[in-house]
Amino acid sequence: MKSQIIKLNNPPKISSTYSVVGHLERQGPLGALFDEFCQDDKFGKDTWEQAESEMQLRAVQGAIKRAGLSDCNIDMLLAGDLLNQCVGSNYALASIDIPYLGLYGACSTCAEGLTLGACLYSGGMAEYCGVVTSSHYCSSERQFRFPLEYGGQRTPTAQWTTTGSGAFVLGNEGKVKICEAMIGKVIDKGIKDINNMGAAMAPSAIDTLTRYFRNSNHSPKDFDLIVTGDLGYEGSEILKDLLLGEGVDIRENHTDCGLLIFKRDEQDVHAGGSGCGCSAVVMASHIVPRMEAGELKNVLFLGTGALMSPTTLFQGGSIPAISHLVHLEA
Amino acid sequence: MKSQIIKLNNPPKISSTYSVVGHLERQGPLGALFDEFCQDDKFGKDTWEQAESEMQLRAVQGAIKRAGLSDCNIDMLLAGDLLNQCVGSNYALASIDIPYLGLYGACSTCAEGLTLGACLYSGGMAEYCGVVTSSHYCSSERQFRFPLEYGGQRTPTAQWTTTGSGAFVLGNEGKVKICEAMIGKVIDKGIKDINNMGAAMAPSAIDTLTRYFRNSNHSPKDFDLIVTGDLGYEGSEILKDLLLGEGVDIRENHTDCGLLIFKRDEQDVHAGGSGCGCSAVVMASHIVPRMEAGELKNVLFLGTGALMSPTTLFQGGSIPAISHLVHLEA
Repeated sequence: MKSQIIKLNNPPKISSTYSVVGHLERQGPLGALFDEFCQDDKFGKDTWEQAESEMQLRAVQGAIKRAGLSDCNIDMLLAGDLLNQCVGSNYALASIDIPYLGLYGACSTCAEGLTLGACLYSGGMAEYCGVVTSSHYCSSERQFRFPLEYGGQRTPTAQWTTTGSGAFVLGNEGKVKICEAMIGKVIDKGIKDINNMGAAMAPSAIDTLTRYFRNSNHSPKDFDLIVTGDLGYEGSEILKDLLLGEGVDIRENHTDCGLLIFKRDEQDVHAGGSGCGCSAVVMASHIVPRMEAGELKNVLFLGTGALMSPTTLFQGGSIPAISHLVHLEA
Repeated sequence: MKSQIIKLNNPPKISSTYSVVGHLERQGPLGALFDEFCQDDKFGKDTWEQAESEMQLRAVQGAIKRAGLSDCNIDMLLAGDLLNQCVGSNYALASIDIPYLGLYGACSTCAEGLTLGACLYSGGMAEYCGVVTSSHYCSSERQFRFPLEYGGQRTPTAQWTTTGSGAFVLGNEGKVKICEAMIGKVIDKGIKDINNMGAAMAPSAIDTLTRYFRNSNHSPKDFDLIVTGDLGYEGSEILKDLLLGEGVDIRENHTDCGLLIFKRDEQDVHAGGSGCGCSAVVMASHIVPRMEAGELKNVLFLGTGALMSPTTLFQGGSIPAISHLVHLEA
C-alpha cells in the first residue's frame, strides 16, 4: 500500500506572499495585515469578474516584486478560481508573460497550487514558481446562488465568499518551507445543501487528515496549528467531532481560514468565510508571516473544496468535496 | 533568459491509453480505433453531464486495467473537462479511490495533464500517474451556446465539441515516452467570435511553437508529426500561414485532432472537432498507437485551449487562449 504522502526531497521555500482583499475583509480581524484593499470591491473595473481578475493580477505582481524578482524569473504560474472556466485567472494572466497552468479545486485550489508548485520545484522543473488564487463575493453570489439585487436571505450555515486574492512565490529563499504534501480524494457523503458546504467538505478533510496521520509518523500534537480552509463554523465543528470519534483529537490546535477572516458577531457572515481567495489571503498575510516570525514552527494546511456546480445540484446531485494537505515547516 | 522548455530527466512512458466516444465519433474516420462507444451518447445516464462523467470513469478504469494495474497502484489522477466547475471530472472520480488533482485548460487540458503528469513522474512523486479529460457535445452546447432543442444554425467556422473521453497511464513501461514539455502562456489577440475559436487559439499555438523552436535545437523537420488539438480547419490554416510568415514551415507535417476525428464533408461538423475529449481520444486511440507501431518516432503534441466563459463574452470580452506542448518520442 502506498503512503500517498509526497515527501519533497528538495523542498521549496515560500519566498514571498501578497494579498489583495475587498472592504469587508479589510474590516475583519486580519484587516491590517492585507497588502491592498479596495473600498468598493471593483478595483477600478466595470464588472465583478474583471475586478476579480484585477485582484489576481495585483497579487501576482505584488508577490513577484516582493521576492525581488521579475516576470522573466518565474518559470510558471499555477492559478485558479471559482468562476466558470476559471476566467478570473485566465483574464488576469493574459497580461503577464509567464507560462500558466490552470487548476480547479474549488476552495482547495490554493493548497492544490502549493502542492503542485512544490513538486515542480522539488523535481527541478522550476527555479521559481508562482501560485495564485482568487474569489469575489459578488461574482460568486451571481454564479452560485442569486443575483445580489435579489437580496436573498442566507441560512445560518451559509458561508460568505471572500473577496480576495493571495499569491505566493516558491523558490530557494525564505524562512518557511513546504516539506510534504498529500493529494486529496473526491469524497461524497450525499450532502445536497448548497448552503451548508462545511458539512459537505468536512468528510473530505477527515479522509485526508486520517490518511496522513495513519501513513506518517505524525500525530496532531506534532503541529502548532492544523489550519483548514475553509470549513467555516459548521464544517469545523463537524470535522473536530468526527475526528475525535476516530481517535484523532485536533481540538487544541485547529483553526480555519473561514473563521479567522471575519468577525462572526459583527460582520453578518453567518458560518464564516469561504472561496478560493479565503485560504490564500489568510495563509499569505497571517499564517506564513506568523511562521516567519517564529510564532509557529510546524503547520498543516488543509485546503478544502466543494466540487459541485449549480447544474449538478439542479439535477439532484450531491456535493463531492476534496481536501489537499500541505505540510509547512519554519 | 530561461528556455522555458521542461526537459524530463526521468521521462515517463505512456503505459496504456483508453478511449470512450459517442456515436458521431464512432462514425468518423477513426471510429474503429476507439475502445468503447455509445449509440445514444447517454451511457445509461439521465443527463448529459452524468453521461460525460460516465465516459470519464470508463476511460480511467479502462486505461488502468489495460496497464495491468489496479486503482491502488496509481499515485494520482490529473483530470479536467469543459463543464462549469469541472464537474465532468469531479463526479467521475468520486467513485474512484485515487488522489485527484483538478485542471482547467479548456481544450488544452489533455496536454496540460500529460505535462504535469510527466513532471510528477520525472520528479519521483509518482510511480504511476493517470491523466483523463472529457467533453460532451450536448453538455457543451447547452453551456456555451444554445440548448439543443433550439436548433440554432451553426456558422462555417464553428467547431463541433467531441463527445469522448481519453485516458492515459504514465509509468515505466511502454514504447512512447514524454521527453519534453513546454507550458503555454495566455495569449489574447482580441478575437471575440465564439463561433471561431480556431482563430482565437491559433496565436497561442504560434507563441508556444515559435518559443519551442527558438529555445531548442529543433526545427519542424525533426518531427514526423506536429499535431495540434484542436484548431479545426480555420485555426489550422491560420496557424500554418502565420508560422510561414515567421519562417517556420509546418505545412508538410502538421495535422490537427479536430481534423482527424470527423469526416468533414459527410458529418456536418463545419470546422472540425473540438473539446477536452477530442485531442484526448485522438492521441489515445490513433497517434500514440501509431508511435507504438513504429510509424511515427518524434511527435510534437500541442494542446490548444480557448479560455473564455459565456459570462466574459456577454460582457464584451475577447477570447484568451493557451497552448501547452508535449514532445513524445517512440
